Amino acid sequence: MEQMTYKDSGVDIDAGNESVRLIKNFVRATYRPEVLGDLGGFGGLFALKNYDEPILVSGTDGVGTKLKIAFLLDKHDTIGQDAVAMCVNDILVQGAEPLFFLDYLAVGKLIPAQVAEIVRGVANACKESGCALIGGETAEMSGFYPAGEYDIAGFAVGVVEKKSLITPARVKVGDILIGLPSSGLHSNGFSLVRKIVFERMGFKGDEKIPELGKTIGEELLTPTKLYPAICLPLIKKFGEKIHGLVHITGGGFYDNIPRALPEGLSATIDADSWSVPTIFRLLQSWGNVSRREMFRTFNCGVGMILIVDAEIAEEIDGYKMGRIVEGTGVEILGGDLSD
Amino acid sequence: MEQMTYKDSGVDIDAGNESVRLIKNFVRATYRPEVLGDLGGFGGLFALKNYDEPILVSGTDGVGTKLKIAFLLDKHDTIGQDAVAMCVNDILVQGAEPLFFLDYLAVGKLIPAQVAEIVRGVANACKESGCALIGGETAEMSGFYPAGEYDIAGFAVGVVEKKSLITPARVKVGDILIGLPSSGLHSNGFSLVRKIVFERMGFKGDEKIPELGKTIGEELLTPTKLYPAICLPLIKKFGEKIHGLVHITGGGFYDNIPRALPEGLSATIDADSWSVPTIFRLLQSWGNVSRREMFRTFNCGVGMILIVDAEIAEEIDGYKMGRIVEGTGVEILGGDLSD
Repeated sequence: MEQMTYKDSGVDIDAGNESVRLIKNFVRATYRPEVLGDLGGFGGLFALKNYDEPILVSGTDGVGTKLKIAFLLDKHDTIGQDAVAMCVNDILVQGAEPLFFLDYLAVGKLIPAQVAEIVRGVANACKESGCALIGGETAEMSGFYPAGEYDIAGFAVGVVEKKSLITPARVKVGDILIGLPSSGLHSNGFSLVRKIVFERMGFKGDEKIPELGKTIGEELLTPTKLYPAICLPLIKKFGEKIHGLVHITGGGFYDNIPRALPEGLSATIDADSWSVPTIFRLLQSWGNVSRREMFRTFNCGVGMILIVDAEIAEEIDGYKMGRIVEGTGVEILGGDLSD
Repeated sequence: MEQMTYKDSGVDIDAGNESVRLIKNFVRATYRPEVLGDLGGFGGLFALKNYDEPILVSGTDGVGTKLKIAFLLDKHDTIGQDAVAMCVNDILVQGAEPLFFLDYLAVGKLIPAQVAEIVRGVANACKESGCALIGGETAEMSGFYPAGEYDIAGFAVGVVEKKSLITPARVKVGDILIGLPSSGLHSNGFSLVRKIVFERMGFKGDEKIPELGKTIGEELLTPTKLYPAICLPLIKKFGEKIHGLVHITGGGFYDNIPRALPEGLSATIDADSWSVPTIFRLLQSWGNVSRREMFRTFNCGVGMILIVDAEIAEEIDGYKMGRIVEGTGVEILGGDLSD
């Protein structure tokens, strides 16, 4: 009877070792002085410095069906940044400095060069966010994902002193909302995006869109912006005058802004205060998407919002997009994303 | 032109909210006093207690193609324990107490009752391991996974005082290896298992296997054992006399034991010192798997190994399965898994 091996079943341990060889220098380049040990340990080790009352802030997220765009274009060096950004932007809103990151990568077939491309993107984004990539899992799941396809999830841990933790309690009437530009769609709403772009419009990934000055694939795959390098210095400089941050992630403006507000307060936003990027206007028009759905699904050009004390608003670069008022929910005026 | 909505594209935010409603009590039941806030924040918050020199130990892992067994049996309340166990057992080997856990769950279609079943398994395993489930992402990725199927990954963070960190440096010649029983296959080698069981043997999931006294599906889906409740008290009691722990995970005995050893030391193991469970003998025989492949792929009945100072070996329950010698690699004698 023929001998059966693990490799025959579609799991190639040698390809796994080759992947590790290809990524180890990218990974080591992210190490901060607090990292102990090296690749290959059972757990990633991080020596926490002295804090009075350290609060660990953690978050996990994936990239969703934006992955399908990477598969379509066969371009895998940007999706890692998306995974990092979705996590670090989440923990940032509570004032935490990202410390370390781990990635989970599940592939249909372990192609070392592809894994290296993906992890290089993860590592570069970690470095840009100041966090160390201290662990990860690359799982070869044959018969689960098609060869060449994969799923990725990220996990970030940050720290903040308890007294500096940003909570809804700080927000008060009259605070100013300052929007920071997004780099594009980031990593939300892609199921709808794909349906509009590829099903209704029938575009191929390399369809050149004159209004965008690039192909639709390039536009859609633009990696999610990393906000730590912009926001951490502001948090450090302005301290308690920063009353809140809002990561415009799944659920858009309507679901995310209330997460940063105390009971009884709401936000009123003037969407004419920034220029909604062309891709959002195109998606709205191509899909005849309602205005409310646009702001509930997409960032519409604003990926992070700072809620600040009015007295410092002029000192911060960004769209002065609204203010905090009494009430519930979020009111968005102008911007004309149709209806 | 027909309006397109996010929901039409296969992402149902209401189903997401319903899932949260179903799981929130399981999740809250895992909270330790250090957890701040509640479900719904951007990041999970954990107040770290006082340590002299805290080392954070983190790990991520998935369940691999064991998921296919859960799909086959349409039973989803055990796979969460697998995700937790694969992570906490990894961080445990460095002496860390698991503090908190986050899960990433990507589903083809968000079925709230199914998500609740999965997350209940995660939450119960977290509770049993003493760690709080403080975050998670449930992503509905239509067109990515078939409806009813999903992938899951876990992330665990633990802490250990620097002076108590278990590193290879402690291990010395003459140390005794004590094996702790596994609960079955745990979550490794399932691509090979499925090939043997379903392709070569042609079994259905409900095939009753007389030698096992149960169906093959029940046997294969047995959740991975959680070792923190066994090992943490031993680490506490015996301190530096515990020289190492080895989680027998992907790569089996041959790849994992060396991860706990310093350069120049190896282990010699007598596989007659425990009774290899029937499922492993069946898989070997059904697949005509080589002896080396068996010990490189499966735990063969031993899911965790303690490497201890010889003077305490008799005080610890478990298989006295081997000892540390000079040399390289791992030598496994006896046990007769054929060849």
